[in-house]
Amino acid sequence: DFVKIDHHRMIRQGFPEVIFCQGKTAEQVATIMKSLAVHNNSILATRATEAMYAVVKAVLPEAQFYEVPKIIYVKRDTIEPDSQRFVLVMSAGTSDIPVAEEAAVTAEIMGNKVERVYDVGVAGIHRLFAHQDIIQNANVIIVAAGMEGALASVVGGMVAKPVIALPTSVGYGASFNGLAALLSMLNSCAAGISVVNIDNGFGAGRLASIINKMR
Amino acid sequence: DFVKIDHHRMIRQGFPEVIFCQGKTAEQVATIMKSLAVHNNSILATRATEAMYAVVKAVLPEAQFYEVPKIIYVKRDTIEPDSQRFVLVMSAGTSDIPVAEEAAVTAEIMGNKVERVYDVGVAGIHRLFAHQDIIQNANVIIVAAGMEGALASVVGGMVAKPVIALPTSVGYGASFNGLAALLSMLNSCAAGISVVNIDNGFGAGRLASIINKMR
Amino acid sequence: DFVKIDHHRMIRQGFPEVIFCQGKTAEQVATIMKSLAVHNNSILATRATEAMYAVVKAVLPEAQFYEVPKIIYVKRDTIEPDSQRFVLVMSAGTSDIPVAEEAAVTAEIMGNKVERVYDVGVAGIHRLFAHQDIIQNANVIIVAAGMEGALASVVGGMVAKPVIALPTSVGYGASFNGLAALLSMLNSCAAGISVVNIDNGFGAGRLASIINKMR
Amino acid sequence: DFVKIDHHRMIRQGFPEVIFCQGKTAEQVATIMKSLAVHNNSILATRATEAMYAVVKAVLPEAQFYEVPKIIYVKRDTIEPDSQRFVLVMSAGTSDIPVAEEAAVTAEIMGNKVERVYDVGVAGIHRLFAHQDIIQNANVIIVAAGMEGALASVVGGMVAKPVIALPTSVGYGASFNGLAALLSMLNSCAAGISVVNIDNGFGAGRLASIINKMR
Amino acid sequence: DFVKIDHHRMIRQGFPEVIFCQGKTAEQVATIMKSLAVHNNSILATRATEAMYAVVKAVLPEAQFYEVPKIIYVKRDTIEPDSQRFVLVMSAGTSDIPVAEEAAVTAEIMGNKVERVYDVGVAGIHRLFAHQDIIQNANVIIVAAGMEGALASVVGGMVAKPVIALPTSVGYGASFNGLAALLSMLNSCAAGISVVNIDNGFGAGRLASIINKMR
Amino acid sequence: DFVKIDHHRMIRQGFPEVIFCQGKTAEQVATIMKSLAVHNNSILATRATEAMYAVVKAVLPEAQFYEVPKIIYVKRDTIEPDSQRFVLVMSAGTSDIPVAEEAAVTAEIMGNKVERVYDVGVAGIHRLFAHQDIIQNANVIIVAAGMEGALASVVGGMVAKPVIALPTSVGYGASFNGLAALLSMLNSCAAGISVVNIDNGFGAGRLASIINKMR
Amino acid sequence: DFVKIDHHRMIRQGFPEVIFCQGKTAEQVATIMKSLAVHNNSILATRATEAMYAVVKAVLPEAQFYEVPKIIYVKRDTIEPDSQRFVLVMSAGTSDIPVAEEAAVTAEIMGNKVERVYDVGVAGIHRLFAHQDIIQNANVIIVAAGMEGALASVVGGMVAKPVIALPTSVGYGASFNGLAALLSMLNSCAAGISVVNIDNGFGAGRLASIINKMR
Amino acid sequence: DFVKIDHHRMIRQGFPEVIFCQGKTAEQVATIMKSLAVHNNSILATRATEAMYAVVKAVLPEAQFYEVPKIIYVKRDTIEPDSQRFVLVMSAGTSDIPVAEEAAVTAEIMGNKVERVYDVGVAGIHRLFAHQDIIQNANVIIVAAGMEGALASVVGGMVAKPVIALPTSVGYGASFNGLAALLSMLNSCAAGISVVNIDNGFGAGRLASIINKMR
Ligand SMILES: Nc1ncnc2c1ncn2[C@@H]1O[C@H](COP(=O)(O)O)[C@@H](O)[C@H]1O
Ligand SMILES: Nc1ncnc2c1ncn2[C@@H]1O[C@H](COP(=O)(O)O)[C@@H](O)[C@H]1O
Ligand SMILES: Nc1ncnc2c1ncn2[C@@H]1O[C@H](COP(=O)(O)O)[C@@H](O)[C@H]1O
Ligand SMILES: Nc1ncnc2c1ncn2[C@@H]1O[C@H](COP(=O)(O)O)[C@@H](O)[C@H]1O
Ligand SMILES: [Mg+2]
Ligand SMILES: [Mg+2]
Ligand SMILES: [Mg+2]
Ligand SMILES: [Mg+2]
Ligand SMILES: [Mg+2]
Ligand SMILES: [Mg+2]
Ligand SMILES: [Mg+2]
Ligand SMILES: [Mg+2]
Repeated sequence: DFVKIDHHRMIRQGFPEVIFCQGKTAEQVATIMKSLAVHNNSILATRATEAMYAVVKAVLPEAQFYEVPKIIYVKRDTIEPDSQRFVLVMSAGTSDIPVAEEAAVTAEIMGNKVERVYDVGVAGIHRLFAHQDIIQNANVIIVAAGMEGALASVVGGMVAKPVIALPTSVGYGASFNGLAALLSMLNSCAAGISVVNIDNGFGAGRLASIINKMR
Repeated sequence: DFVKIDHHRMIRQGFPEVIFCQGKTAEQVATIMKSLAVHNNSILATRATEAMYAVVKAVLPEAQFYEVPKIIYVKRDTIEPDSQRFVLVMSAGTSDIPVAEEAAVTAEIMGNKVERVYDVGVAGIHRLFAHQDIIQNANVIIVAAGMEGALASVVGGMVAKPVIALPTSVGYGASFNGLAALLSMLNSCAAGISVVNIDNGFGAGRLASIINKMR
Repeated sequence: DFVKIDHHRMIRQGFPEVIFCQGKTAEQVATIMKSLAVHNNSILATRATEAMYAVVKAVLPEAQFYEVPKIIYVKRDTIEPDSQRFVLVMSAGTSDIPVAEEAAVTAEIMGNKVERVYDVGVAGIHRLFAHQDIIQNANVIIVAAGMEGALASVVGGMVAKPVIALPTSVGYGASFNGLAALLSMLNSCAAGISVVNIDNGFGAGRLASIINKMR
Repeated sequence: DFVKIDHHRMIRQGFPEVIFCQGKTAEQVATIMKSLAVHNNSILATRATEAMYAVVKAVLPEAQFYEVPKIIYVKRDTIEPDSQRFVLVMSAGTSDIPVAEEAAVTAEIMGNKVERVYDVGVAGIHRLFAHQDIIQNANVIIVAAGMEGALASVVGGMVAKPVIALPTSVGYGASFNGLAALLSMLNSCAAGISVVNIDNGFGAGRLASIINKMR
Repeated sequence: DFVKIDHHRMIRQGFPEVIFCQGKTAEQVATIMKSLAVHNNSILATRATEAMYAVVKAVLPEAQFYEVPKIIYVKRDTIEPDSQRFVLVMSAGTSDIPVAEEAAVTAEIMGNKVERVYDVGVAGIHRLFAHQDIIQNANVIIVAAGMEGALASVVGGMVAKPVIALPTSVGYGASFNGLAALLSMLNSCAAGISVVNIDNGFGAGRLASIINKMR
Repeated sequence: DFVKIDHHRMIRQGFPEVIFCQGKTAEQVATIMKSLAVHNNSILATRATEAMYAVVKAVLPEAQFYEVPKIIYVKRDTIEPDSQRFVLVMSAGTSDIPVAEEAAVTAEIMGNKVERVYDVGVAGIHRLFAHQDIIQNANVIIVAAGMEGALASVVGGMVAKPVIALPTSVGYGASFNGLAALLSMLNSCAAGISVVNIDNGFGAGRLASIINKMR
Repeated sequence: DFVKIDHHRMIRQGFPEVIFCQGKTAEQVATIMKSLAVHNNSILATRATEAMYAVVKAVLPEAQFYEVPKIIYVKRDTIEPDSQRFVLVMSAGTSDIPVAEEAAVTAEIMGNKVERVYDVGVAGIHRLFAHQDIIQNANVIIVAAGMEGALASVVGGMVAKPVIALPTSVGYGASFNGLAALLSMLNSCAAGISVVNIDNGFGAGRLASIINKMR
Repeated sequence: DFVKIDHHRMIRQGFPEVIFCQGKTAEQVATIMKSLAVHNNSILATRATEAMYAVVKAVLPEAQFYEVPKIIYVKRDTIEPDSQRFVLVMSAGTSDIPVAEEAAVTAEIMGNKVERVYDVGVAGIHRLFAHQDIIQNANVIIVAAGMEGALASVVGGMVAKPVIALPTSVGYGASFNGLAALLSMLNSCAAGISVVNIDNGFGAGRLASIINKMR
């Protein structure tokens, strides 16, 4: 009785309910995953731990685990993603990579081609311009950045594609666990930018996937 | 020397620089609009006042003014928007309409068909479900809401299209001028939602237009 | 001298003083419980640990422990709760259950019939409507929700009964440990809603019990 | 199209939709009131101005205005409230009276007997104890207080009835427009208390009415 | 070179520099204490750990440790405090005692008679009034309280003596680690109250001592 | 019924209830003052306006008005203050004077000798040291300061007398209307300091008077 | 007695005390300016109004007024600034110019050559790169920006000179009157950047002048 | 692919990219250091752990570790710093030393002569004045302080050199992990002060080095 799985979600939204593991027991996660696995081809559980994975694996042997973004998943379909349209995931620093990977992996599991350009923050802006091509060809762009989060504005000013700003909690002191980056991104003077919650790689990846599949 | 108009923006982003009137003198606004009018067909100035409009009108007689969203604009092209793909702008209450209209008018001037469904907040949720059809057929949805901003989550859970959450400063007390709605929307447990700044109708409309034109 | 038990509270408020275990030593908790047990039939201690329970059990063998909500209690009376009038405890997600259970168990120990409807958050709102009957028949409703806390508003708009909104600290990033849910609930545009402290299941259960016993 | 009146609310919640005037034009308020007046006996509009009242009066001559709480209303039914069960509205200071009156008048229009005990803040606590009788006999209590909001806790510890804490924005400096009172009330160590938004007299009065009518 | 002991403080302020142990190594604490012990009779170190005490004890065998308030001290003088004038330290709950004891012990070591009245919070206000005598006879009063911190206002309204409000971090959720109590105390409508930092028992005790010695 | 004057306050606290004019009508202020004037020699009303004073003057001709601190008062007794014991009121800047004067005038009306040393902020610290004598001879010191509020700490480190820190809302930007000064003063590393609310000159003056009269 | 002019400041810091006009009467400003004019060649008063200027002008006819940054000043010396070393003041938008001008004018009056590059925000970053030359040749750079304040980071990453980040209150919603820009600048991942208060053009100009005169 | 080292930074800014170790794996740190070591003489990594150092040491044996400020570095050049121009690093308390050392060591590794004056907070201000000489002779001053951060203002008022205010997270309660010191410093009424992020010793040292090398 601890869960009412939204089995209708696949129909309504094109992807089954995704499990938010934080605050759940490993047993709860395993039970939900197993139940979802009956009717769905792809399953995703975010913010998981190694220990949770062990419990899930025991009941659902095909489950796999991504170390860096802490994602447990099942992926059965083998449909090739559209190679003409890709999601670009960028990060300002190396420390933002775990969050960026949560976004990238989410979009991949949902059937998108994903490209990555990491560690191109504004302190050395030539690193960014060196990737002009891939930036201009992307269909949707996710920009993960902590600290002052300025990368989102700069990228937002370069393209005519949707930019999903993904603030991370990387930083210290007056970064207030990502608040500085969040506010920075919300106040971006570049147009075409919208923002998701701090460290919400999943949300960014999910939205990118929805946009990337629009025709 | 008070301005360096980004005349390249039309090429880079498909729409010329939009003027943010707050903190500018009426003369500055008029000068910038006149200059933009030389090379662009559509021009937009947000957060304008009636008084600014008078000064602009004097130098640029074709300029027009939308009362409710406080927008001055010029629109010369007569290209019909794609009638198959529309942006839906929703509001939770009547008081959110000025912000919602900033979004709607922005998207219209940028060449999109826009539909409006206003005053369908969650306190009487049947009003929302009565519009299931238009919601399901929209290509992108903007949800403007103040107070607790819950409408964005509910709509977000109903569709497989991008939902742009637009928090408004409508409310009082612990709404802290839109902070409650902003935080609520950032923490939405529905996927496919992203958020723009409080009262940033322009940003929501601009992003909706970009997404709506993707093919 | 570390405690002045309010032995008069049973008379004044119909239930003896409840022990808030956080910040107390296990010995202090045990001493207070033992003292309260002399003159009262029901005793409640919230935010307890397994270790505290061991110390209490040693001096008060009839004490019992609820794992999930971390409650130590004694319940001697065997009066049946009024089966016509029940408190409904709802949760938006599975992760909110520990807080919801603090509320549910508090109301039960205070002599109320309690029903539970868990994991019916607004992202899949049909799950909520599937429970229309029990919702309409409840006498008082507690809604536990973290993240954006939107469930309280939606339920608040459906009924003509008091709704006690119970924000939880479930979430991350801009949920700021429950602040987003708290603000959301305080700004609810549905009437008949009031709010207790973040994670204060005890307070919600106590108030529900008071209202449920009104005639 | 600026409004979708929730004409079903009377049936669902026992009182028609209440109009929040802030952010609406006088014309909008008048139109909504007139429309509601067709099918309902009692109508309420809060946070109105004298100027709005003039416009409403012109189209709905039976409308009346309460100066202190800024409420426009229509009340046609002449049913006597139950004289055995009353709502008690208390205020800590004289400056809190406008908010307290919003609560009191709301409860009265909704058909409740209301008693008032104003200016009994904790700085001179004997003033409070002088009203023990009326406090003990109340069925529901609303406590309006600004500054440190301590009155709610003290009253909450004296009774076994629901106490609705109503923080006001009275104060200055570190009261942060009512935040201090709000936090104080949310953290009350007295049980049976719940809180509504800062200055939300309407919400407190509405909830008190719902509870007062329970049998 | 890590320290410049203010050896002049005894002359200027009547008590030597007090060591704030947090953020110092045990070796640094021991070195400073030893140096201060050469010219002063009483020495105080706050926020110490058991481990620090061991290191101090090794070089300064006369040092003693108070477990509850985590204070290391030396006290050589044997002057009797004035028995006619005492500092009263009160606490709202049992959980506030460690902070209250930091204040009480500080005042004692500085040569004052100290009385304690603990666990008399406003939820059961008769407990407070039962101590009217000692309250009226005190020369200075310290009120330690967490959660909503209302006790300070109530006591402040009862006496014509200085009341030092000492907010504690006891609480959870919207207590924000003592912020709610701090704001509550700063906004007290009772006069004669002033406030020290959250959990700053030392500051409260020091100020009480200064006032208590005024003639 | 809008007021319950605390006529007992003079006996309990040595000075009658002080009227907080903000949020009251001029008529309410006049009525309260007139009522207090029957049994008390000194009456004080803070945060008054010129307009309120006119209304008060009409019914209570002996009332007087201090322009700078906006205080209406009556003072009938002619007892000389103790010339050996004075309250020193200091301000960091010229802009802090209105708040400092609220403190100074409050203490004077309550029967204390008051000295003033204004505009001696830490940016030119020699100005402060030039007043060493009067600082050392004061019995209680009030330090009013806005911006970074550093003056309180410096004075606190120079004396063995109680220092009442009075943060003002003078400043801009990240002073957040006095929050910076308030936090600064609460965290003072000098001992013997306590803090009142931002701009609460009245509270500082009242507390200083209480301490100054201790024997 | 309302002022203690720091007549020693010229000697100690190379420029006389600067008057902060906010919160002062026009008469106070005029008196201070006149007094400073006796011994100093250059005088500066910031945050002045037109009305203040009129009063100053009457007693000090040589005083002049800058409209945009609201500065009253006297400048008697005619020493040429070092033309080899200039301060560069940049702004992200047109709306930031008043604050930027406060900085520029301050540095000029203090004897520095100042260059301006306005409206080169990151949304159209080519506008910035078009000024590479002047940026590389500057001796100190001030970057005024509101909204997300990203320009400071980008400039900070391009040069090996000190960059003074000057957040402005330009923006709305979650810019929280400049807080977003302030936090963004404090968290800049570019080195060589430091920050002054929101809208503190004076402070930025003063510091730039000090650095620019170092040899 | 986890890193795009900014190999151009030495040329652009005179010092190679500095590694921020927080949020990186020890392997990532080691890889980046080794890569930077190929083309640069000095390398710096901040916020490192002992464990990271071990991994770095294994691949880059010449790397060294500073315990107190947690800095890993390589320094090959043997150029003597200019002994006529030194950076002065001051701290208010002993507990601020780790942050102060991050600044000092950074400046040293970048080739500056550094002097230290620690533990001279304003509570015993004579300790500060005892160092007048070294303060007056410094070329740039860094002031590290936690709690109320007042030292920066006092030093700022004494000199005509740039003062870099470095707030630390030392403190508790309402220091909010350094926020109080940060706000205090941003609002300093002394001119010539600018501020870096809380605990950002590196940023302060880097900026001091840039200024100290200006000619
Ligand atoms: N300036 C002031 N700041 C804070 N409290 C005040 C002030 N003036 C008067 N008071 C207190 O406010 C209380 C009055 O509250 P009220 O009943 O609203 O008039 C009195 O008991 C005074 O002790
Ligand atoms: N979980 C809880 N949350 C808030 N208050 C509580 C909780 N449990 C008990 N209390 C209240 O806290 C008071 C006890 O405070 P103390 O004296 O510190 O034990 C009791 O009077 C209870 O009403
Ligand atoms: N209402 C608005 N909210 C946020 N940004 C806007 C708005 N209107 C225009 N802008 C952006 O603000 C930038 C102009 O800033 P400025 O240089 O101050 O005029 C433009 O590039 C627009 O993209
Ligand atoms: N618990 C405490 N809270 C606040 N300040 C303290 C505390 N204990 C000691 N102090 C003060 O902190 C100063 C020491 O700072 P430091 O130089 O870091 O040791 C002393 O001057 C004391 O007055
Ligand atoms: Mg990097
Ligand atoms: Mg509506
Ligand atoms: Mg769920
Ligand atoms: Mg009163
Ligand atoms: Mg207790
Ligand atoms: Mg001054
Ligand atoms: Mg511009
Ligand atoms: Mg020290």
